[in-house]
Amino acid sequence: MSKLIEPRTLKGFRDYPPDLMIPREWLMDTARRVYRSYGFAPIDTPALEYAEILIGKLDADAEIQRQLYRFRDHGGRDVALRFDLTVPFARFAAQNIAKLGTPFKRYHIGPVWRGENTQAGRYREFMQCDFDTIGTTSNGADIETALVIHDLMVALGFERFEVRINNRLVLNGLLEEQGLAEKAGPILRVLDKLPKQGRDKVIAELSAPLGEGVGLEAGQAERVVALAQTQGSSGEVLDRVERDFGRNAKAAEGVARLRELIAVARTAGIPDERLRIDLSICRGLDYYTGTIYETFLTDLPGIGSVCSGGRYDNLAGLYTKQALPGVGASLGLDRLLAAMEELNLLPKASTPAPVLVVQFAAERLGDYQRIGRTLRQAGIATEVYPEAKKLGAQLQYAERRGFRLALIAGPDEFAAGVCKVKVLATREERSVPEVELVATIQKELAADQRR
Amino acid sequence: MSKLIEPRTLKGFRDYPPDLMIPREWLMDTARRVYRSYGFAPIDTPALEYAEILIGKLDADAEIQRQLYRFRDHGGRDVALRFDLTVPFARFAAQNIAKLGTPFKRYHIGPVWRGENTQAGRYREFMQCDFDTIGTTSNGADIETALVIHDLMVALGFERFEVRINNRLVLNGLLEEQGLAEKAGPILRVLDKLPKQGRDKVIAELSAPLGEGVGLEAGQAERVVALAQTQGSSGEVLDRVERDFGRNAKAAEGVARLRELIAVARTAGIPDERLRIDLSICRGLDYYTGTIYETFLTDLPGIGSVCSGGRYDNLAGLYTKQALPGVGASLGLDRLLAAMEELNLLPKASTPAPVLVVQFAAERLGDYQRIGRTLRQAGIATEVYPEAKKLGAQLQYAERRGFRLALIAGPDEFAAGVCKVKVLATREERSVPEVELVATIQKELAADQRR
Repeated sequence: MSKLIEPRTLKGFRDYPPDLMIPREWLMDTARRVYRSYGFAPIDTPALEYAEILIGKLDADAEIQRQLYRFRDHGGRDVALRFDLTVPFARFAAQNIAKLGTPFKRYHIGPVWRGENTQAGRYREFMQCDFDTIGTTSNGADIETALVIHDLMVALGFERFEVRINNRLVLNGLLEEQGLAEKAGPILRVLDKLPKQGRDKVIAELSAPLGEGVGLEAGQAERVVALAQTQGSSGEVLDRVERDFGRNAKAAEGVARLRELIAVARTAGIPDERLRIDLSICRGLDYYTGTIYETFLTDLPGIGSVCSGGRYDNLAGLYTKQALPGVGASLGLDRLLAAMEELNLLPKASTPAPVLVVQFAAERLGDYQRIGRTLRQAGIATEVYPEAKKLGAQLQYAERRGFRLALIAGPDEFAAGVCKVKVLATREERSVPEVELVATIQKELAADQRR
Repeated sequence: MSKLIEPRTLKGFRDYPPDLMIPREWLMDTARRVYRSYGFAPIDTPALEYAEILIGKLDADAEIQRQLYRFRDHGGRDVALRFDLTVPFARFAAQNIAKLGTPFKRYHIGPVWRGENTQAGRYREFMQCDFDTIGTTSNGADIETALVIHDLMVALGFERFEVRINNRLVLNGLLEEQGLAEKAGPILRVLDKLPKQGRDKVIAELSAPLGEGVGLEAGQAERVVALAQTQGSSGEVLDRVERDFGRNAKAAEGVARLRELIAVARTAGIPDERLRIDLSICRGLDYYTGTIYETFLTDLPGIGSVCSGGRYDNLAGLYTKQALPGVGASLGLDRLLAAMEELNLLPKASTPAPVLVVQFAAERLGDYQRIGRTLRQAGIATEVYPEAKKLGAQLQYAERRGFRLALIAGPDEFAAGVCKVKVLATREERSVPEVELVATIQKELAADQRR
């Protein structure tokens, strides 16, 4: 026998066996369903692109550049694996928007690759799950983005969460009024660390001299942080900004857009406590120019935002002269999966089917598959065990995989036109006439879910 | 303004805009649903693997080797993009099967990459869509594979198709009886071309001297082709093989397994005309050792098999000493999409939502989104136009995108508690009380589908 090749995955990459892939697929399905329900349409783009397109105007020493999987293909082309879905979307939009028309609403769920140093829970291949509306500056699209995030979180089974919303116009207006307009970029990048690092560290970094920090005077740094930490309901926060800074055109426009967002969301039926104006939300990226969004789980605030995004002025300026303003957000799939695992929200099963039909008598395989097809047609996923092994071995398999019900029928049952239904969690079993099987199983599965 | 980067995709790669991605996603969803309904569980594996794992024992000059996207990663590792889902599954199984247990049923839907010469309709990145049962030699798994293929084709909307089934044991038995056992490999590879190239060319290649062909005597070649082309119902074909070759142990076992398959499928409710024993089906790959499957569309036979597979003795022999026999098949996603386009089975729309709520009066945006959320909660995907543009422009957008219904409400309608429902195909419109909106729209969409 020749030498075996050691089966292994690359460092920073992982397999998804069924117990991990079932919840992951459910999450992607749910996102897809919610995005579609708002009229976002799916697109896909290649994993490989010309390196120059992905790199765009990144600094030569930017972290992303170093993380790029970049090589020469068979034709000697300089190519790389995409590191996010935004840059390919920009390239896609520049190439196709004339044909597609605006407004254009798309979602894109797909893997991206970054050769990062692998730390706890960071992988070199991970899924992104983005939705965007481009080709309109209308606040209607900003408002809808908040509704989508809200409905997505509810569809994922969360009740206790908060979408925190701000507007870069407000932040920039406040900074202008402090005479800090020119330092807005660095200030916002530091302010973005407020939830994680707290007030004191952020003030220290803001007031540290240039090189180490932003170089603000101590009083300025404190005022900036105090403004960002303005407390109160959404209405109170907006009233205060308007009172103190309403003379500033940017701040006034930002406040007006946020007010409309809160009002429309309320009329549309979103509970008030789920959306909150929070002046400390600022997102690190220079890219954002208007509304910005972060989403926090009330029971796991430390995990950070699980769905974030914002409005930008121009998606595809590197590739086309056509200005493409837009707004969108991205679901943090892996972070959310980790959170759901921690909150015990994930079902523990390695089968997508709740019902196993035991192969009791090999010569009745046709009947087992007939019963299986009847249940499948009623929407109940049903596996038929492939061999006529001992009953005990088949039931052990059923329990190990996480099936909910086992169906057992031998010559006696077939003669009587019945089938035994065994509830695996309680080990209770009873005979059910075949004609009542679908209804009985639907009832048992509903009861099992409540257990 | 700095120079623009030309937005373009790599040769052999393509974007999927919504009108292509919507049917593609629907196809993948349908496959997923059918696979799951039989208890196949999802897995995923990395796009990148160690090159040595993907290459295995391929000849250095094998086509796949030349097509591999292979490079050195940041750590200097020799890595490559997967070229199919079978090799990664073998690696995965070798690594994980002890923990997962057998039988193990998985599906895997994901992209693979091959730097092929790009011809009509061949891309360097394409989706594979595989399902397999491993860890059992039981015919129950072979039979189920045929049922899954059948139910998948039906779920995809096909009525006129045929799953053609054979067994390598039968073919090998027939060749043994002709004294051709040692040439079985090359003979089957040539015989595999029978549907495309026809009888005469295949006989010519079989009887051409070694180097150009297989080197059979003319009489042998004709007998082999005549056997492969045995006509008749599944029962007749099996009866003839049994009568003429039943003394051969392999042929007898192959016939017994095929007989059971046909009998179980019939009892399980598969129409007889959908499954057919066809001795000319032999699949080119040496890999297969038992039952083999191909699937043909009655109305487009020339497109070739759209779902193919077979039984194999050992999935992961390169990576583990544990024998992992199995059986599975793969849906030819891109081929099937092309077929469905040709048969006009694909809906023409670039939106996943059937309903557009017109933004007639900007100050009622909250109500438009409230109506939208009511419809979404009833399972009706609904887009709200993001700006209060002119009605004509919004309706033009609706038609261009392929929406089915537009909802229009201004101050008068809101005052009266109604909403206008416009059927875009017929341009008919009527006022509907808001409380009846969901029911009316469900009825209109059903009527629209029948149109």
